[in-house]
Amino acid sequence: MSTPLFENIAIIGIGLIGSSLAQSIDREGLSARTILYDIAPEIRDTARGLKLGGEIVDTLAEAVANADLVVLCVPVGAVGAVAKDMSRALKPGAIVTDVGSVKESVVRDVHPHIPAGVHLVPGHPIAGTEQSGPEAGFADLFAGRWCVLTPPLETDEQAIEQVAALWRATGMQVEIMDANHHDRVLAITSHVPHLIAYNIVGTAADLEEVTRSEVVKFAAGGFRDSTRLAASDPTMWRDVFLNNREAVLEMLGRFVEDLTALQRAIRWGDGEALFDAFERTRAIRRRVIDAGQEVDAPDFGR
Amino acid sequence: MSTPLFENIAIIGIGLIGSSLAQSIDREGLSARTILYDIAPEIRDTARGLKLGGEIVDTLAEAVANADLVVLCVPVGAVGAVAKDMSRALKPGAIVTDVGSVKESVVRDVHPHIPAGVHLVPGHPIAGTEQSGPEAGFADLFAGRWCVLTPPLETDEQAIEQVAALWRATGMQVEIMDANHHDRVLAITSHVPHLIAYNIVGTAADLEEVTRSEVVKFAAGGFRDSTRLAASDPTMWRDVFLNNREAVLEMLGRFVEDLTALQRAIRWGDGEALFDAFERTRAIRRRVIDAGQEVDAPDFGR
Repeated sequence: MSTPLFENIAIIGIGLIGSSLAQSIDREGLSARTILYDIAPEIRDTARGLKLGGEIVDTLAEAVANADLVVLCVPVGAVGAVAKDMSRALKPGAIVTDVGSVKESVVRDVHPHIPAGVHLVPGHPIAGTEQSGPEAGFADLFAGRWCVLTPPLETDEQAIEQVAALWRATGMQVEIMDANHHDRVLAITSHVPHLIAYNIVGTAADLEEVTRSEVVKFAAGGFRDSTRLAASDPTMWRDVFLNNREAVLEMLGRFVEDLTALQRAIRWGDGEALFDAFERTRAIRRRVIDAGQEVDAPDFGR
Repeated sequence: MSTPLFENIAIIGIGLIGSSLAQSIDREGLSARTILYDIAPEIRDTARGLKLGGEIVDTLAEAVANADLVVLCVPVGAVGAVAKDMSRALKPGAIVTDVGSVKESVVRDVHPHIPAGVHLVPGHPIAGTEQSGPEAGFADLFAGRWCVLTPPLETDEQAIEQVAALWRATGMQVEIMDANHHDRVLAITSHVPHLIAYNIVGTAADLEEVTRSEVVKFAAGGFRDSTRLAASDPTMWRDVFLNNREAVLEMLGRFVEDLTALQRAIRWGDGEALFDAFERTRAIRRRVIDAGQEVDAPDFGR
């Protein structure tokens, strides 16, 4: 085992990401000691029954008191409140990071509660499954994926590098990006795709003439992938849409504009326009495969 | 090996489905003799180099002349022309079926060319991958999936049962359905999901500020599934939309209506509406998993 990257890591929030991170840290020996905390007593109880490789404590203050690194693994709508609650317990020189899918709002909500001498390095490991809760976590979740860090300009370089080193050690590649740009990129590659997946499953469920049994039986025709995305954690996704409103609304506007053009082509029987639209998207698919972003992690919940 | 279900099967069109069907027929011993034909000489050449378990011939008439069962595995936009071309070569008592994703238009386009004494049993094996061409085929493609047959009311019961028996022998479950109902069910479970996948990939490709490289890197956030669907065969899908126009436009109208409600909830910060919408779709996902429609066939292209 190599020298740990951190003496004490605190993981706040023991869902899919918190649980997976704890297991990855444990397996790779990335900390001398890991402390986990979740606001829900039943989640803490469940986590105690799992081999996450850390100690589960009952208060937020106890969790962060000796931490060199605090990783907030809570929905983006909750990071501000958590940051406020733990603020006074943070050790001087500590680093605070998070895993939220939106980054401008995290800077906005967390930064005011970070004491002088503590470093904030907002982050987003882009990995997940449609499962949630501590039982859903696994050490390999991050392998081969990308992690985006969005530190404000004045952030300590050493702190950024330490957070990057942690994610690299879990198997991720790390990219530094402006928070606003992150939010716009993710709006199109993640947020809008989830919204339309939730939406098509909802539309199907509401059809009077098509039974749910039919929808389920014939899911192999394309619907299956939508149901997978639409099974993701509702709280997490509600918070994403509430906190990345501008970017999501803009990308959604473009999506609907383009969809209207396809709809018109269908109505007027314009086969050439349809063929052209369907042909050009294949190249993107090839690049996703070439970039190794297709193969799922071993335990990816399907 | 059991007694073959058919003496002579002709497969017209050697794409993903035709190739997979030939291999499944060969492995399960479902015909004494299988003849394959494709209109494209280069596809016939490629097919000759693969072990599909049938003889590849150079004319449509030769392919169907002695067939007890003719399976049209061509895009739905081409079935009418193929039916017309092969009409006079069909053997009395033969059965003609197809694999198209739209069924009312197949009845409309094929039925007029079916001679008296020949049986038409339109069908749709709901199985596929985003790959196309004869190399993409594999014998297990149909295992565990559903096949829908949409025979017109007057269709010979024996002919229906023979086609059903073939698909069951490839591993499918078979359901009989009215063609119009099929087209509406598939519009929501397959056609609209593909359209929105093509569309979101196109929208992403057009963004000036987000590079293709970023779209590809961060595909694990949800975009990946869209790129998979959007890599499907453009000709096949153009034909689906041109031939299932009414049902697709109606389902698309409902989809956009529902999406507009979510868009409004995002704009006005209505977290409760978003949470409720995201929560109810999880139950559908559970049913898809329980129905065994999640696990992919072994060679499913990822």
